[in-house]
Amino acid sequence: MFKNFKIHFSLILLCIVIGGCKDTANTTSVLVTNTKELTQAIKDCVAGDEIVLKNGVWNNVQIDFYGEGTEQKPIILRAETAGKVSIEGESFINLGGSYLEVRDLYFKNGHTPTKTLIRFKINDEKIANHCKFINNAIVEFTQPDRDDTDHWIELWGRHNSVSNNYISGKSNFGPTVMVMLKGNQHIKNYHQIVNNHFGPRPRKGGPHGETMQIGDSGTSMTPSHTNVANNLFERCNGEVEIISSKSNNNVFENNVFFESEGSLVLRHGNYATINRNIFIGNDNSPFIGGIRVINTGHWITNNYFYKLKGETFRAPLAVMNGIPKSPLNRYNQVTDAVIAHNTFIKTETPFHFSVGSNVSQSAVLPKSEIRSARPLRTTVANNFMYKVSTSDLIKAYDTIDGVNFKNNVVAIENQKVKLPEGFLQSKVSVVKKGNFLYVPTETDRNIFNGFDFETIDKDLFGNSRDENSTVVGAIVGNVKEETFLFNKKEYGANWFDADGEKTIGKSITINTSKELRDQLVKANSGDTLLLASKAYEISDELKINKDVVITTKDKLQPATLNFSSKATAFRMQPKGYLRLRNVILKGTTIQNTFTTLNNNMSQAYSLWLDNVEISNFKSVLEVSKGSFADTVSVKNSKISNVEKGFQLNKETNDKGDYNSAFVIIENSDFQNIEATILDYYRGGYDESTIGGHLTFANNTVSNSGTKEPDNILIKNRGIVNLTLSDNTFKNNPVNTIAVLWGEKGQRPVNNTISNSGEIKTVQNLKLKLMY
Amino acid sequence: MFKNFKIHFSLILLCIVIGGCKDTANTTSVLVTNTKELTQAIKDCVAGDEIVLKNGVWNNVQIDFYGEGTEQKPIILRAETAGKVSIEGESFINLGGSYLEVRDLYFKNGHTPTKTLIRFKINDEKIANHCKFINNAIVEFTQPDRDDTDHWIELWGRHNSVSNNYISGKSNFGPTVMVMLKGNQHIKNYHQIVNNHFGPRPRKGGPHGETMQIGDSGTSMTPSHTNVANNLFERCNGEVEIISSKSNNNVFENNVFFESEGSLVLRHGNYATINRNIFIGNDNSPFIGGIRVINTGHWITNNYFYKLKGETFRAPLAVMNGIPKSPLNRYNQVTDAVIAHNTFIKTETPFHFSVGSNVSQSAVLPKSEIRSARPLRTTVANNFMYKVSTSDLIKAYDTIDGVNFKNNVVAIENQKVKLPEGFLQSKVSVVKKGNFLYVPTETDRNIFNGFDFETIDKDLFGNSRDENSTVVGAIVGNVKEETFLFNKKEYGANWFDADGEKTIGKSITINTSKELRDQLVKANSGDTLLLASKAYEISDELKINKDVVITTKDKLQPATLNFSSKATAFRMQPKGYLRLRNVILKGTTIQNTFTTLNNNMSQAYSLWLDNVEISNFKSVLEVSKGSFADTVSVKNSKISNVEKGFQLNKETNDKGDYNSAFVIIENSDFQNIEATILDYYRGGYDESTIGGHLTFANNTVSNSGTKEPDNILIKNRGIVNLTLSDNTFKNNPVNTIAVLWGEKGQRPVNNTISNSGEIKTVQNLKLKLMY
Repeated sequence: MFKNFKIHFSLILLCIVIGGCKDTANTTSVLVTNTKELTQAIKDCVAGDEIVLKNGVWNNVQIDFYGEGTEQKPIILRAETAGKVSIEGESFINLGGSYLEVRDLYFKNGHTPTKTLIRFKINDEKIANHCKFINNAIVEFTQPDRDDTDHWIELWGRHNSVSNNYISGKSNFGPTVMVMLKGNQHIKNYHQIVNNHFGPRPRKGGPHGETMQIGDSGTSMTPSHTNVANNLFERCNGEVEIISSKSNNNVFENNVFFESEGSLVLRHGNYATINRNIFIGNDNSPFIGGIRVINTGHWITNNYFYKLKGETFRAPLAVMNGIPKSPLNRYNQVTDAVIAHNTFIKTETPFHFSVGSNVSQSAVLPKSEIRSARPLRTTVANNFMYKVSTSDLIKAYDTIDGVNFKNNVVAIENQKVKLPEGFLQSKVSVVKKGNFLYVPTETDRNIFNGFDFETIDKDLFGNSRDENSTVVGAIVGNVKEETFLFNKKEYGANWFDADGEKTIGKSITINTSKELRDQLVKANSGDTLLLASKAYEISDELKINKDVVITTKDKLQPATLNFSSKATAFRMQPKGYLRLRNVILKGTTIQNTFTTLNNNMSQAYSLWLDNVEISNFKSVLEVSKGSFADTVSVKNSKISNVEKGFQLNKETNDKGDYNSAFVIIENSDFQNIEATILDYYRGGYDESTIGGHLTFANNTVSNSGTKEPDNILIKNRGIVNLTLSDNTFKNNPVNTIAVLWGEKGQRPVNNTISNSGEIKTVQNLKLKLMY
Repeated sequence: MFKNFKIHFSLILLCIVIGGCKDTANTTSVLVTNTKELTQAIKDCVAGDEIVLKNGVWNNVQIDFYGEGTEQKPIILRAETAGKVSIEGESFINLGGSYLEVRDLYFKNGHTPTKTLIRFKINDEKIANHCKFINNAIVEFTQPDRDDTDHWIELWGRHNSVSNNYISGKSNFGPTVMVMLKGNQHIKNYHQIVNNHFGPRPRKGGPHGETMQIGDSGTSMTPSHTNVANNLFERCNGEVEIISSKSNNNVFENNVFFESEGSLVLRHGNYATINRNIFIGNDNSPFIGGIRVINTGHWITNNYFYKLKGETFRAPLAVMNGIPKSPLNRYNQVTDAVIAHNTFIKTETPFHFSVGSNVSQSAVLPKSEIRSARPLRTTVANNFMYKVSTSDLIKAYDTIDGVNFKNNVVAIENQKVKLPEGFLQSKVSVVKKGNFLYVPTETDRNIFNGFDFETIDKDLFGNSRDENSTVVGAIVGNVKEETFLFNKKEYGANWFDADGEKTIGKSITINTSKELRDQLVKANSGDTLLLASKAYEISDELKINKDVVITTKDKLQPATLNFSSKATAFRMQPKGYLRLRNVILKGTTIQNTFTTLNNNMSQAYSLWLDNVEISNFKSVLEVSKGSFADTVSVKNSKISNVEKGFQLNKETNDKGDYNSAFVIIENSDFQNIEATILDYYRGGYDESTIGGHLTFANNTVSNSGTKEPDNILIKNRGIVNLTLSDNTFKNNPVNTIAVLWGEKGQRPVNNTISNSGEIKTVQNLKLKLMY
């Protein structure tokens, strides 16, 4: 008793010292300076207490935060100054109990040694309820090995909240935020995931790169009631699903999806509400999607789609075909969906129906994989479209016979066009009101009154529809000039600047090999190393772990880099973005030109070559399993006298992974490459990624493939997107130049072939089933 | 206007005449005498109106009852006097609109010409909401052809009510009451199915004989919220599922299942509540079940199980194994179920776990049919047992590793026994308080407090658990002497006497063949026709359409009936229950002894033979497809010189149907049967019925099978229950006597075989998959 009293007395003193208490009458605050004190403070804490982490770097924080707060008196764990406490190294926090709050922390320069960073459960007996993770930042807290799986935030229990956080840069396997539902303690959770800024999540090059997942295929029958609202998803490019909803009754409201390569996907589970969300594609990429619908009873209303050009799985509005009597982990039929009062601006083909229909692939897929069950009892009504393709409003991959299209209005001012049934032409004009925001100047009086449509009682901006009940689309009433669609500053932690400092790269002149090596270490990301027009002798490998340009000042007289290093000329490391221009690279045939680390390739690298000559190397690029290049780009370059070309072929476990998102080779010349000039592999029947992207155009390839055992020049097995055009293949003693995948629309265009085998096309590729 | 005024004026007059209005100020009542007037009255009706059917027989009533009542002013369609209006012939009523009531009607002597008798929808635009079907009786309103499918009551829309009805005698294909859920208009329906008396539904001899079904395999993700409460299910023997719940959030509360061969089955869908129900088996039959659990999140609490001896699918509490990643229409794994505070009295093995585990049948079933996923995260706690088998409390068909057994109490007064983990022995004594009702005399203080267990706040009788929160089992507190468990009179229509008049059969002496024929027509069910010890020459077939005994007065000197009728001696008709005793039947080899109608065998028949001699016929029994014998019983009889024996082999479409529920042949003698002595067939991999029951014991079979093309004496393919014991087979020139099904526990016992082939056993029978 006495001991406890003593502790509390000192806490009150500390409280006064640090001045962090809002209500000193009720709150006891303890400042802790190391994990031992922190652990003790947690042990001692009672409702109303506040545990304050002293500003600074906290390494290897591994704690179970257990406590029983109350609604009026939560127990708070926070930074002395918001953002000034960084949690680094091998750290994690588990929460258990009631009414706990973790706030104001900065997680960086580390990763969790367990499977979770923030877990709302200590163990099955100590589960968190009514707890909050608030106003924190988690940046690149990613596993050294991208193949290692974790969740940064794992929600268990009920009524927990993840709000006002900035979260970005997860490169490894596993959803960033995961809601767990197995066990009655975790269902009907009503978790709040709100006001967060989900910053960029890089392309993962394989499945399990969701930014958020709610449940799994085993919880498709489970009521979740998770509320995902007012979040900004900015360039969340991990995989095809930005959010994967896999449980029932989830609500997605008022979120902004900004240039994110993927979709909000109703993957399993039913009766989701998707209301008042904004999808901005900005025409930037065909991989930026909108909403993908599977299963029963979803309501998709008042959403705003701007400049989206994705197709099929990444369509603005993709409604899938299901598998008849689908297994639990595959695709149920879409039934009883309502898609109403959405607005599509400058989005060519808003609606894709029966997406995933694959009856044509019956030869290579088992019956239990054939998606032939078309959408049923689905209503598409009162949607508004502006600057869409009137001839291509709906793309259908199967018969549309279960969908009720009613009073969808297309704004077309000056011409009469023929529209599909259920679509009406309107002369209403549309004006730009702000960035991304276009609104009609008057209302259309045609409206369909579907079952329960009176529940669609607000518009995109939260304005009541009561007095404007005859307005189609997502926006009712007049919108003021300079209205903005959303304000980036309103999301995430209040102390964190997501845009950071914009530094302008400087140029550094390089005269000697030693300077090159030293300056590569010293340079900041964005800098340019300027070589003289002469030769440099380089005996050590050059490490690339930042964004750097290496070029010759006088690009007409490129510098020559003569490498005698053992294993490789350049060693690509995580976040190494090498931009090589106007240089000549020469080896001694014993080393590769570019090689990744053997492991711990925790984040992606990229390689851009422009006007580069490469000769006398083993392989041009050799990579390790788990390494991932976002882009490998070769332009206006010449590669000759090497054993192998680009070897992106180490993800061979056939689980949908691959070693590079984009490979672009243009206007280049390949001579005397003994084996394949490119080996780019993706295996496994997976649909959750871009699936790789290869452009090989306007190149010349000659005298290559001479020692290739498989008698093939370019290996691209399983790569989904491919352009092979305007190349010349001359005197390459192989049977096959490349094998194209017909079902994905691949075909050779305008290639000139002499004495070089042939370009083959197979319609369906038989891949390994992953589930 | 004037016309309308006139009509309403006359209605008010009628209203005074018939005196049926409760509140003449608000109610306009119109008495109608034929369907034309009825149709007009419906057309004219407004909120608050009452349409009264004049007492009498109404034939071929086929109406759409559309109207818009209000909560305060419903539109009522009713009998002049409750029960005195009978709807007969080809009739149906469709309801559409709001706040309609149909009450006090007696549906009998007919069937619906459509697929429904009472449908809560006129068409997809005119759906019933807030409508009631109340205080009616539907008796044997069954299709002439049992293979024709219909639903007697089909619920659509929302907030409809089926209450206080008596419903019995559906013999044909299709659930008696069906709740339809496809379409957003029908989900979250909160229908009330309450206070009904579901009288006997005969064994169907094939699937689709449920008394109630809520949704189908396509609605396992759909929230239904149907409330099934305070109903009596009496001898509902249609199939293995009395109630088949196939949607989410249904509530089953306070129902009594009395000697019903089947279970309350949570077939598809999740989160059902089964609370305060009573299951009474009375040891009557091994086919009387309790509750069968599949899927996720069910709560099974406060139920009372009395004298149940069913096993596997029909166990008192059957928790099934699921199919991993099950297809939509098969078996999901059981997870997160709570089975707490139930009471089991004189029920040997209360718990059956991993029911349906069929890994052993991998050879004959596809992988997608193998139920290997064991129950997970399931809690079995605070249950109370009395007079159960302590050595056999749980029957497990697979490892039990996902179930948490806690504080289940077994009352054992005078001995110390070893119980499984999670079961406790208690010395509390148990006393009988009334019919079926046994209660402990004191409370046990051991209780497990599971997650959310505080919601189990009432007991079986609705008493609060607040002050008795340490009591296990379904009953808290003291129960008064002579308390009754339930009162049959409280269920069903207030005007209908479910037990009817009990008539005592009379005996009629028969001297001539003409008298036999005439008296068979005149006799009432239950009567006995007494023959003299002499010969009767009979040239016309005898029609059996009632429950009748035919016997010889002096059973030591049996009468002989010499048949010269063309097709058959006896013609079995629906509800023909023939009990033949002490007679000799002789044919002229051109006719069968017993033959059903070729069609319209709308209801079951039965045949009991005791001390009967049959000779010189074609077949002993020939049946038609769709005909169904509840029982064919042959005892102490002699059958000789016939072409074929009992031919119950017309259900060959392999959909689980069969021609007789029970075939019992004992102490009888078969001689010179040229083909099979019995052909009893059931095809298709179906688990929804008893599966047929054959007892063949203590018989002698000789010189038979001489002309059997398949060289087999007894065909019993697909019959699930079989006893073959203590028979003598002598000089039958066949290869095979019978083929037994090992997997169902069949084995020959103590048969004597000489010169007669052999009895074979196959372990697994390869049957046609039905889905």
